[in-house]
Amino acid sequence: MTEARDRAAEASRPTGTLERHSPVGTQRDSASPDPGERGTGDSDGPEEAAALLRRARASVDPELRAALASLPGMLGRVAQYHFGWQHADGTPATDNAGKAIRPALVLASAGALGGPAARAAAVRAAAAVELVHNFTLLHDDVMDRDTTRRHRPTAWTVFGVADAILVGDAVQALALRLLATDPHPAAAAAVARLADCVVELCAGQQVDTAMERRDPHEVTLEETLAMAEAKTGALLGCAAALGGLFAGAADEDVEALDAFGREAGLAFQLIDDVIGIWGDPRRTGKPAGADLAARKKSLPVVAALTSGTPAARELAELYTRPYEEGTEDLEQTALAVERAGGRDWAQAQAADHMARAMQQLSRAVPSPEAAGGLLALAEFVTRRNT
Amino acid sequence: MTEARDRAAEASRPTGTLERHSPVGTQRDSASPDPGERGTGDSDGPEEAAALLRRARASVDPELRAALASLPGMLGRVAQYHFGWQHADGTPATDNAGKAIRPALVLASAGALGGPAARAAAVRAAAAVELVHNFTLLHDDVMDRDTTRRHRPTAWTVFGVADAILVGDAVQALALRLLATDPHPAAAAAVARLADCVVELCAGQQVDTAMERRDPHEVTLEETLAMAEAKTGALLGCAAALGGLFAGAADEDVEALDAFGREAGLAFQLIDDVIGIWGDPRRTGKPAGADLAARKKSLPVVAALTSGTPAARELAELYTRPYEEGTEDLEQTALAVERAGGRDWAQAQAADHMARAMQQLSRAVPSPEAAGGLLALAEFVTRRNT
Repeated sequence: MTEARDRAAEASRPTGTLERHSPVGTQRDSASPDPGERGTGDSDGPEEAAALLRRARASVDPELRAALASLPGMLGRVAQYHFGWQHADGTPATDNAGKAIRPALVLASAGALGGPAARAAAVRAAAAVELVHNFTLLHDDVMDRDTTRRHRPTAWTVFGVADAILVGDAVQALALRLLATDPHPAAAAAVARLADCVVELCAGQQVDTAMERRDPHEVTLEETLAMAEAKTGALLGCAAALGGLFAGAADEDVEALDAFGREAGLAFQLIDDVIGIWGDPRRTGKPAGADLAARKKSLPVVAALTSGTPAARELAELYTRPYEEGTEDLEQTALAVERAGGRDWAQAQAADHMARAMQQLSRAVPSPEAAGGLLALAEFVTRRNT
Repeated sequence: MTEARDRAAEASRPTGTLERHSPVGTQRDSASPDPGERGTGDSDGPEEAAALLRRARASVDPELRAALASLPGMLGRVAQYHFGWQHADGTPATDNAGKAIRPALVLASAGALGGPAARAAAVRAAAAVELVHNFTLLHDDVMDRDTTRRHRPTAWTVFGVADAILVGDAVQALALRLLATDPHPAAAAAVARLADCVVELCAGQQVDTAMERRDPHEVTLEETLAMAEAKTGALLGCAAALGGLFAGAADEDVEALDAFGREAGLAFQLIDDVIGIWGDPRRTGKPAGADLAARKKSLPVVAALTSGTPAARELAELYTRPYEEGTEDLEQTALAVERAGGRDWAQAQAADHMARAMQQLSRAVPSPEAAGGLLALAEFVTRRNT
């Protein structure tokens, strides 16, 4: 799903029920402020998010570059390649950096609860989160045998499996080192949180790789959702929570920020899975239906498989056979998922999780002005259109 | 070389020149105290070391078990298997734990410089070092395709490559978390040191795996020694240094302890490489000459290859061909290494590095009584006979 995370960062805004279910219009907790009144409003979200991402990238890049510069020999080479700063031959590259969504969440969260001083204090924590994200990408690509990442060959295809594993290990060490040596009084608590998140990311990837080998009949929707939360929600939650810790927030606010990031991450994953089946291949950079061809047990697919409908039985039948190129396989499979209700379910669930994310956000950051940046980022990860 | 580390921990005391070159008798820095006068003397070393290892195991096991118990699902299962606490089916196992050499070094170092209180304060640091050691074993076994560890199938052969990578990742996170959340004032400095050590271990393994693919003529003795220091010396040095940090030692004493561990680690590796060629297979659990059959560029081999002797050319010729089972290949190759001086060189170098280890130890811990435990452990790792 780390692959999926990045895919959505490059994907088109899905059409469908999400617009209607937009949490901005459907906030159901009347005790909390209406997020529709928040900040600069929904229409300014994309520009605000883009500005926050650019600013986060500018803030964390010096920390990331300094950390990576400490890696000796080939470890440094492979890391610089993976981060998009060098080509495979070691010459400088400029246009392949990631989107810095997680650092932006850390910084927006710190800023929302502690203002510019807290934002400045959280820069190393933001860099640490980005390092953890990239260590998991390096390793997940090895395990999943993914050959493309950010439109380039993955590190293991260029430098070999051993180097990709070792650089991932080293980058995790850099991440926790950066956070542990931060002078902020919350640094130790932040390391504990980030390390717990690493364990959760690993557990999620473990369930995911094991799930791919299991019979479609055996997989439940509950465990698929739990896996998606661990693989995608945990690090977004941790990012938001770390910002809170570095702003000196109260425990319950830190937990609410964590829950906000987790819910937004689940919404993101649901939408990403929809794009993985019905998305526009010219926009996503992947052929539509790639997840179906790989017989991936994505959320809409598992929802369809467990729906008890006639289409569910048809889908299960299709999923027990390998994908046949040059046939109507993909169209047939996508249609079965849709008729079994997988598409509608995923879109409604995405809206529900975004609504819950907004509730948690209003709990941690009651002021609409202060919460505007986090809201814009949450909308960006779930519905971005550039 | 992580495999090699463990092999020596189960290997017989090598016969040969090492007895004559024993650093106890050949300490050449007359300005430093004679290590022969230290502690309870050389003859009590093995019993003292065994007692220290038992005590270290008893001290760190509760921390290790608590850390591993926090791993969810299959991550916990695989970790418990790797640590020797469970069989592959999840039932309890008791007789497969490692030797706890690195935790014993942390605790002996803390005790030497800070007495029992420092030793007690360093228990979590000792557990963290053991967790790091085991995370590297899990990953190195995947990369090296090693199928046996501590007389059992390696984790990746039982649970698959993905699970072994993920559990290694999680165990690294546990290690740095344990250290970062330690209440000791040196905790942050200790995390920095341990994380730097992880990077060095990765760099050493990177050079090692790359070296195995290179032409025998291209490999220099200098880079092979540097690789051995990174792969084997770095973590022993870090263990000793962490003990110093937790005893509140001065910077220069911490550095001397690091150098002590590194030098002892190099001595250990040199002797282990000698055992890898000429060792008794009934005692090591591996066939004699396994390293030669795999055409490994171990230290005696590279010394022989770069000796400029006629036997060096013969060895290079043998190493360009794959090992031929059922022939005189191994005997011929071992003889070529020996005639090119590789065996004598390795044994003399091991003695030199042990002498340097003793010098560094006397610098950090001038009192022979206080240094006795560290001396016994250094002798144990380089010459143990049980």
